[in-house]
Amino acid sequence: MLELRLVQGSLLKKVLDAIKDLVNDANFDCSATGFSLQAMDSSHVALVALLLRSEGFEHYRCDRNLSMGMNLGNMAKMLKCAGNDDIITIKADDGSDTVTFMFESPTQDKIADFEMKLMDIDSEHLGIPEAEYHAIVRMPSSEFARICKDLSSIGDTVVISVTKEGVKFSTRGDIGTANVVCRQNTTVDKPEDATVIEMNEPVSLTFALRYLNSFTKASPLSNTVTISLSSELPVVVEYKIAEMGYVRFYLAPKIEEDDEETKP
Amino acid sequence: MLELRLVQGSLLKKVLDAIKDLVNDANFDCSATGFSLQAMDSSHVALVALLLRSEGFEHYRCDRNLSMGMNLGNMAKMLKCAGNDDIITIKADDGSDTVTFMFESPTQDKIADFEMKLMDIDSEHLGIPEAEYHAIVRMPSSEFARICKDLSSIGDTVVISVTKEGVKFSTRGDIGTANVVCRQNTTVDKPEDATVIEMNEPVSLTFALRYLNSFTKASPLSNTVTISLSSELPVVVEYKIAEMGYVRFYLAPKIEEDDEETKP
Amino acid sequence: MLELRLVQGSLLKKVLDAIKDLVNDANFDCSATGFSLQAMDSSHVALVALLLRSEGFEHYRCDRNLSMGMNLGNMAKMLKCAGNDDIITIKADDGSDTVTFMFESPTQDKIADFEMKLMDIDSEHLGIPEAEYHAIVRMPSSEFARICKDLSSIGDTVVISVTKEGVKFSTRGDIGTANVVCRQNTTVDKPEDATVIEMNEPVSLTFALRYLNSFTKASPLSNTVTISLSSELPVVVEYKIAEMGYVRFYLAPKIEEDDEETKP
Repeated sequence: MLELRLVQGSLLKKVLDAIKDLVNDANFDCSATGFSLQAMDSSHVALVALLLRSEGFEHYRCDRNLSMGMNLGNMAKMLKCAGNDDIITIKADDGSDTVTFMFESPTQDKIADFEMKLMDIDSEHLGIPEAEYHAIVRMPSSEFARICKDLSSIGDTVVISVTKEGVKFSTRGDIGTANVVCRQNTTVDKPEDATVIEMNEPVSLTFALRYLNSFTKASPLSNTVTISLSSELPVVVEYKIAEMGYVRFYLAPKIEEDDEETKP
Repeated sequence: MLELRLVQGSLLKKVLDAIKDLVNDANFDCSATGFSLQAMDSSHVALVALLLRSEGFEHYRCDRNLSMGMNLGNMAKMLKCAGNDDIITIKADDGSDTVTFMFESPTQDKIADFEMKLMDIDSEHLGIPEAEYHAIVRMPSSEFARICKDLSSIGDTVVISVTKEGVKFSTRGDIGTANVVCRQNTTVDKPEDATVIEMNEPVSLTFALRYLNSFTKASPLSNTVTISLSSELPVVVEYKIAEMGYVRFYLAPKIEEDDEETKP
Repeated sequence: MLELRLVQGSLLKKVLDAIKDLVNDANFDCSATGFSLQAMDSSHVALVALLLRSEGFEHYRCDRNLSMGMNLGNMAKMLKCAGNDDIITIKADDGSDTVTFMFESPTQDKIADFEMKLMDIDSEHLGIPEAEYHAIVRMPSSEFARICKDLSSIGDTVVISVTKEGVKFSTRGDIGTANVVCRQNTTVDKPEDATVIEMNEPVSLTFALRYLNSFTKASPLSNTVTISLSSELPVVVEYKIAEMGYVRFYLAPKIEEDDEETKP
């Protein structure tokens, strides 16, 4: 039997909003450690990894490891029916082919339960090795989202270049070119407004803006985003989920040939 | 001659927004008692009844009973041009085939008059007898609107079941099932937040969500909605209009055969 | 070399939003006096004239007169990427076929530069003689925008009539007629709320609402709009740009034949 009670139910709503456009169907894996998901996007280019640790739940009962295949669009539809202040409980009986989402209003005056059929989904869990990155940029998530959106109005790909002084985002398209530089800045009033750069080696990598824009749908989960870059490794775009875990997006850089295509 | 001056003109704007999608053309009936309307929706399934009592108007002159056929879409277009704080006056000369809506800004600096052609509409006034209902539910109108909208994302029909403890809304569709229970709750800070159930007999009736969703467009008129249920009688969904009258929507329950159709 | 630094960069964003739907391509003319534009709308019916005086810029360097052809849609796309509090600098090297827009965030932590190709545009600068107008109406720009929008839901053209008492906007269409009268009103708390009429002679002129609605996109630039009317002269709809200049729209009145067409 599975019963996971999450007081801050809005977190789960935000998680689904963050990943449902990228991934159609996926297995949620429940174990004693936590509630997690790993899935490729539907075009098999980007990888999403989610972890909600068991300690973050008010109540966490998971008698045995369980993999539950869900259609994320349908799951998001159901979670949309939860109020922002609702407590959400995920329930599944052993051997059942359904999962139940229960929503309790803070005053307990309104209780809803939504039952959804589970699916059989073939999936292969990729081991993602811990890696050393050439550069790690931490910046406000709203700033990163704004830059990706702005550059998309000019071009299709972005070159992210990191030096000690800052991080530069560049694009070019039919109507012209654009460069946005964010300087390292740690002397801010609120720590979440800082732009912090840890750099071992300068890097300059090209990515499809379409995917980065999709990743930024996770911005409501966290005030800051961490971008870990290394040549010949996928970039990791990570949004921490308050004391519970994270959503991480992995995307391979475009190789030079691809990059050339975007130049006129 | 007809001259009805309504200081809180926004009420009339809200009334039109509430009914214009349901009813295309209808006769407004003016008499010494008030300004009223009774009309079937365009698919002849639901009935709308509106009453604005004469006492609610700052000035109410209606020399003889008058039935004015109007296209509600066009009327709504004109009322949309009134500011939210405007005083609205409805005027018609005897024997005229037009009606005039006059909008005065609170400062009297802006005066608008909109003239609309009247229509000849055949209509039959149904006598709606006072009836005893098995159960009457009073609840926040925003809560009822939220539930109808949420359940529409899952199914097409809703079963409304009332017991002493509360009212349950249930639906099922391709992606799963949903139940929302609102408990009776009278110990609230603001009386409009209460959910109050008067029950003589338990009832459980099925309705098309499409119509209920349409009725909830009247929510801006009132903080609370009253739902009166009885087997073999149409449900009445009533929104009171502050000290002036009401908008009531009538909808027949679906019979069992219909209900079965929605089950997989 | 050209280098124009505008601390209140949002003004330039608003200017582009005001004119980009009316004009596709246009020459911006830079001289010692200021940064200006004059262009017909794409259907050659309305004329736009923009002036941003050099004194309004924090830094204004323009070594020689320069005419820069730009696609306003693309320019607006780039300016959209500037934050509302950003400082905007427009730069062009002598003989270059590109222009650069630089955006600096108030904290200087984020610097963006957008480069756009210039175009060769044939254009003829019309001399617009100073003229005497029969009537000049100054009113809140939001009020004028609201009236144009409201009347568009009824008809296609508006008759603007000015008398000493006020200004009347009238239209008629399939669903009826509408008249909106704004009275002269100078005893208001805030001067921008006043409606002031200077009249030498009563006027009554007919205009296409489509264009007036387009002009009102400049409303965010100024709290007030000035409408200068004279029979046989195009109307001038002017939005002042705080201490820097103006956007003016010119539109010829419809002659009587045209006017007749709109009557049923």
